[in-house]
Amino acid sequence: MPSSGPSAAPRRWQRLGSRPVLTTRIFTVDSVDFQHPEQPVPRDFFVINPPDWVNVVALTPERELLLVRQFRFGINDFSLEIPGGVIDPGEDPVAAGLRELREETGGAGVRARLLGHVHPNPAMQSNRCHLVLVEEVRRSQALDWDRDEEFEILTLPVDEVYRLAYSGGITHAMVLDALLLFFPLWEKMKGG
Amino acid sequence: MPSSGPSAAPRRWQRLGSRPVLTTRIFTVDSVDFQHPEQPVPRDFFVINPPDWVNVVALTPERELLLVRQFRFGINDFSLEIPGGVIDPGEDPVAAGLRELREETGGAGVRARLLGHVHPNPAMQSNRCHLVLVEEVRRSQALDWDRDEEFEILTLPVDEVYRLAYSGGITHAMVLDALLLFFPLWEKMKGG
Repeated sequence: MPSSGPSAAPRRWQRLGSRPVLTTRIFTVDSVDFQHPEQPVPRDFFVINPPDWVNVVALTPERELLLVRQFRFGINDFSLEIPGGVIDPGEDPVAAGLRELREETGGAGVRARLLGHVHPNPAMQSNRCHLVLVEEVRRSQALDWDRDEEFEILTLPVDEVYRLAYSGGITHAMVLDALLLFFPLWEKMKGG
Repeated sequence: MPSSGPSAAPRRWQRLGSRPVLTTRIFTVDSVDFQHPEQPVPRDFFVINPPDWVNVVALTPERELLLVRQFRFGINDFSLEIPGGVIDPGEDPVAAGLRELREETGGAGVRARLLGHVHPNPAMQSNRCHLVLVEEVRRSQALDWDRDEEFEILTLPVDEVYRLAYSGGITHAMVLDALLLFFPLWEKMKGG
């Protein structure tokens, strides 16, 4: 059991009404009122609402990972990542991962399953990013890039991908999360 | 060297002008024009600009990590995290990490240094999150919580924190990144 410090347990704020303040193609922003149980008046906080996302650890039969390098508008620079993207409304996260893998790289595989999910930014963003593992991935399908997408597709031995991650060659937060959640499985695969 | 697929190398878009579309206490949103070198007209993309952030791996002399549990407005729920927060303008990331550690937990330590940095969301967000390691952390300082902050402070053995991370008990993307970047060092510390 965790050993608690002298601090008090944090209280749950009650979420009251919200007002939309911005709508874009890829996210909305709301101003949301929250009420602390021991404070007299509510306070408002801005919350960014993108759809849920998915990123895919795509393991090849040669025990390499499929990587994509692309230009990213948020950082105005290139980024080395695993395949991923936006989950469509009502779409299953594993199905979405398989779809993104196929569209971005032409890859398909077996034993697709969830590694877990993360919150990209619990403080000010509501969505989740699901992390999916697919094994025996082969690139046999046609590419189907969205408008404004352009990828360099690479494969690298898994341990080399971890070395890149540890040394700053991969900086995408959710891609690194996928590598963290894949790690115990990969240790077992290597040993087995 | 990476083995490249048949895909072409992605081109660098040129960042042209931008227009502010939203200003909040904790981030701004711009509409930014980017020009692809082979497309006739620019395209606009929304970019979220928060300040840089910092998260702190705080290792105690007993080889436990300091954790904070708090209510998070973005996900409308509690989140178990390592200490962290917003870097002030001009502030050094390591200094900011030490400051947040002290303010949130009363902790102070030695050998504070950068583990690296990540991009919370390269696709649509411009900032970085710096990840800092501090060793021999002891809780001897007074707490100094910001308005609306309320923490439960815990310590847990490092390997237990990794088990929590692997099993979904920690979902904050940048906290998991910090654990990933700390991992090779921790392996050495355990062996040494």
